[in-house]
Formats: sequence, structure tokens, C-alpha cells
Amino acid sequence: MYIALDAMGGDNAPACNVEGAVMFTREYNVGVYLVGDEKVLKKELEKYDTKGLPIEIVHAEEVIQMDEPPSVAVRRKRKSSMYIAGKLVREKKAQAFVSAGNTGAAMAISKFVVGAAEGIERPGIAVAFPTKAGKPTVLIDVGANVDCRPKHLVYFAVMGHTYVKEILKTADNPKVGILSIGEEEGKGNDLVKDTYPLLKMTRLNFVGNAEGRDIFTGDFDVIVCDGFVGNVVLKTSESLGTIILDMIKQEVKKSFITKIGALLMMPALKRFKKKADYTEYGGAPLLGTRGTCIITHGSADGKAIKNALKVAAHFEETHFNDRLKDNLENLLPTELREQ
Amino acid sequence: MYIALDAMGGDNAPACNVEGAVMFTREYNVGVYLVGDEKVLKKELEKYDTKGLPIEIVHAEEVIQMDEPPSVAVRRKRKSSMYIAGKLVREKKAQAFVSAGNTGAAMAISKFVVGAAEGIERPGIAVAFPTKAGKPTVLIDVGANVDCRPKHLVYFAVMGHTYVKEILKTADNPKVGILSIGEEEGKGNDLVKDTYPLLKMTRLNFVGNAEGRDIFTGDFDVIVCDGFVGNVVLKTSESLGTIILDMIKQEVKKSFITKIGALLMMPALKRFKKKADYTEYGGAPLLGTRGTCIITHGSADGKAIKNALKVAAHFEETHFNDRLKDNLENLLPTELREQ
Repeated sequence: MYIALDAMGGDNAPACNVEGAVMFTREYNVGVYLVGDEKVLKKELEKYDTKGLPIEIVHAEEVIQMDEPPSVAVRRKRKSSMYIAGKLVREKKAQAFVSAGNTGAAMAISKFVVGAAEGIERPGIAVAFPTKAGKPTVLIDVGANVDCRPKHLVYFAVMGHTYVKEILKTADNPKVGILSIGEEEGKGNDLVKDTYPLLKMTRLNFVGNAEGRDIFTGDFDVIVCDGFVGNVVLKTSESLGTIILDMIKQEVKKSFITKIGALLMMPALKRFKKKADYTEYGGAPLLGTRGTCIITHGSADGKAIKNALKVAAHFEETHFNDRLKDNLENLLPTELREQ
Repeated sequence: MYIALDAMGGDNAPACNVEGAVMFTREYNVGVYLVGDEKVLKKELEKYDTKGLPIEIVHAEEVIQMDEPPSVAVRRKRKSSMYIAGKLVREKKAQAFVSAGNTGAAMAISKFVVGAAEGIERPGIAVAFPTKAGKPTVLIDVGANVDCRPKHLVYFAVMGHTYVKEILKTADNPKVGILSIGEEEGKGNDLVKDTYPLLKMTRLNFVGNAEGRDIFTGDFDVIVCDGFVGNVVLKTSESLGTIILDMIKQEVKKSFITKIGALLMMPALKRFKKKADYTEYGGAPLLGTRGTCIITHGSADGKAIKNALKVAAHFEETHFNDRLKDNLENLLPTELREQ
């Protein structure tokens, strides 16, 4: 098995990407293609003892910048590390694609270069949110698709179910909800109202509407929504978490006593931060693509890259796409499976 | 001027509602109709020296429960305190409506009993989010309308502009954004893409797309979105704030040292909580109704009710609806004003 790693993507690339690949291959017997500037990557690799490690450099002369629109990644910069990493999966030279680069571009590469799996119209990106209950809640889709149709949300539900059951292993028969603005059936916008009866037709453990507040309680294992709403929720939550901690810090600084207090509280705050960090789950997978696609945070360090590679390998070892195919067949009535 | 207060709405009703009305009328020369069970309210009022205070009880024999659907409030329970309070405004016996009861029901009463202002198709509910910068960011609509059309969002923008400029007074020419999933023009779902050019046609200080993370930075004064997305964002943020503090508390409890730390940090945490509490702004106004409608938190205490009454009076004294009408005329090109 080989994983194609976009070695030039991310705020700390390529140093952390190379570090992560070395750490990963030392522990696991899975190969990594480091895709990027050959010269630069060779120099980075020289920092480590890589003898016998299944790491190969694949040259790519261009880099997708963090602020470039996805269309550039897919249509114009076809010599970028991200594009070539995606192409390696498309051509079956690698089984999985991992990038810490420009998220929008990585999603576009996953969708249009790696491509959707057979029978899947719209791959969806899943994020495992930390919850009060300890086990995560998976929100899908968080940005791969805007303006979804009801059928897409039903497919996201099966993808989320399979992710929770096979990869996260936090529930045997995952509780699935649909994100809405009230608990009762009949509440929500047209998309929710049209999707609800379809979800009821499936053999998923569908428990009804979930509200914004239910994302962090752990009462649901999977919550489906269209990618516009999901992306807004993801970005809102990420920034709110940071800003709450910042605002508390600002207040703490105002007196000596509260500063001492903060110092003593530090271990608790660190434990909290670790719990709340969704990179603990190795980044966000784009589910329903032809190979495994893992998109991780731009701020990923070596450990986070290693984690992402580990998760990618885990998806392949679990034969996630086969499980997903089985579940689509077993959980959906025929009329929902027809394209 | 009279304000119709739903005296039976809220978790702490009617005690806190009566307390708030007494506190308010002691300070301001504005009358309050306490709408609810006459016997109960009389008994509550007896706890205070109300001599000379402009408080009048208006009897209502029913109460809208916190879990009843909005349709019940509007169609069936027409003898409820909420319905009768709304009717007092519709019949111009009162100028403003305040409720801490069932939010969905209060919105429905505001829209269908108080009714939309002349020239407004869809009133929108605005929430002032606390931000890092100190001044609030107003998100509108947070739940009064799902499945909006572009024109509705343009109207929300003018409502938000007027709210910031005339009531919050935190900006002279408020920066207006539209909630989307990328900064550049052209990013977003169909609604965003169709609304963007219309907002550009207005004389508002429209600065483009805002992302989820921009809600808490203070870079925007007003962010418009459809009520489905806005409600999800509101409920997500509210619960995330609580859950982060809960999770930190859980971690703190694990050791004696961190407990001491938390104790010393308490003043900073309290200051933070006060800053982050949007009831400081007196609850959420439903903008674009025939009178002033303020919907406040179910958990409102006496002080929060007093604050909500104060804000309601402020809307009336400022002649908010006249200002809104002026702004619709001055800021929108004719083609956007046609119904």
C-alpha cells in the first residue's frame, strides 16, 4: 500500500510533512510518496535516518498557495504537488491521498482528480467533533457540496454511519440525525423537510432532527447537513473555541491573582485542548471517493501529519469503500439507490 | 408609551417578569401591561411597593408552554398571555411586545399577530454577538424565516444597518457582510450568489462575504443570512460556549491544584461571562414588525427582563420603524423596493 502525501501543502510544509512521513513509516509498514520539489524534499529527508523506510519522492514543480481558488488547483496548476498526489491515486499507483494544504483546493482535487467512487454522486467531507460525552459526533457534509438535494443527504448519512462504525468504532448502530432548527418532524427548511421522510425509509438508526446545540452533546453519532450549513458551523465552532480561550486569557491578564490561577489551571486547560482538538482524529476524510482522501489542518505539525497518514492507512486496511458499498446496498431501499 | 409584557413567559415567570417590570417602571416613565393570570400577578405585585408605578394587569387565562409548537400559539391558544400581549400592540393599545417565553411561539406571535411593518415582507430576528473587538456583530436572520429569497436578505441588511446605527450605536456606517463559505465573490450557495450583486447595488457599506469565523472578530457590524443557517449558528455558538466552560470545569475538578487555580481565576471568568452574555443587549429584536418586538431568553431573571423592557422603550423613543423606513428609501435602489 502507498499513500500519496502532498508534501508541499500546509503552513509548516515541507518540514513537518517530511517529519510526519518518517515517523509514520518507522512505525507502519505502508509506503509514502512524498510529492513535491525533489531538491527541497531530498534535503529535508537527509535530516533523518531513512534507510529501509518505504519513502519515495515524486517530483512536482508547482505548489498550490493557501489563498488560491480551487479552480486553479484543478484546472490550471496541473504540475502542483496536490494535483500530482491526487493523480497518483486516480491512476491506482497510490491508494490514499493526504493533504494539509489549501482546504478548498484539496477538496476539489479529491472530487475531480481522485474522483467519486462508483455509485456515489457527491462525496462528502466529514468532521468528528469532540463532545461532552467523550465520543465524537460526525458532521457531514462540512463543505464539499453546497445546494444539496435530499438524496445527497441520505448518502451522507450512510457515509457517516460507515465512518463511525468502521473507523472511529464509537457506535455499533450509529444514531443518525439531520441538522435542523427544531426537534419535531416538520421543522426546518425545504431540504430538511424533503430529506426527513427519505431517512425514515432507510434501515439507518435515524432518530430525527438535531439542533445546533446537539453537535457537542454526544447524543448523536452522525448529523447530516448540506455543505454550506456544515461549513459555516465548522468555521463558527473553530473560531469560537479559539476566541473564548483568547477572551479568557485577556481577562486573566488583568490581575496578578488571576494570572497565578491560570498558571495552576494550566494542566486542566491543556487536557481540555487535547480533548477539543479534532486533529486527534487525524483530520477530515472526504468520504465516497475512489481512494481514501484525508484533508488535515493547515497548521498540522509532524505528529498531525503522521496521524493523518495513520488514518489514511486505516481506511484502506478496513476496506472502507467496500464497507460503504455494502452499507449502501443493505441500508437503502432500492428506490433510493437508483441514480 | 406602554409595553405589553408576556408576564407568564420564561423559566422564571411570573416572579422575575413582575420583578423586572417593577424595576423598570421605577426608573423609566414608561407604562407596562403585565399580561397573564390576574390572581397570580396581583399576588406577585403585592411583594413590592408599586404605588404610582404605571403597571397594569391585563388578564389572560392561558399560557404557551415552552415545548408547544408556534402554530398552537397563533392558531389555537388565543387566550394566552403571549397572544394577548401581541394583540395589544396590533390594536395600538401598546407600542411594544416583550416575551421571555417559547422563542418559536414569540416569533410567530410577532410575525402574525403584531404583524409586519408597511413595506416589509419578512421581519427578521437579529442577535448581537459579542466579539473579540468589544463591539457586537449583528447576525440577521437567526430563525424567523427559513428558505429566504435574495430580496429578503437585502432587507435584513437594511434592518441590521438601522439596528447598529440607531440602537446599538456602535458604527456610523455599519460594515455589512453576507454569510458564506469563502471570502471571494462567487463563493457560496445559490442564495448567496444571487444576493451578492443586489447588495452591491445598494448604498449600504457592503464589504462582501463573511465566513463563520468572522462572526466573533468584530470585523463586520452586520452579517446577513437566511434564518435556517442563522438559527443553526446561534444554537451552535450558545451551546459551544457553555460546553467549553463545562469541559474545562470537568478537567479542573481532577486535581486540587487546578481547583485552587480555578478559584483564583474566578473573577476573570466572571468578567468573561458577562462580556459573552448577549442578554446584556436586552435580548433579540424582531425587526420590521408593526411595533417593537423583543424576544429574550427563557432563563431571563428580573434584571434581564428590565433590560429587555429598556431596549423596547429605546426602540420606540428612537422611532426605529421610521428610521428603518427612511433607510429603505435612501439605501435601496427603486427596483429593490418594489414589492
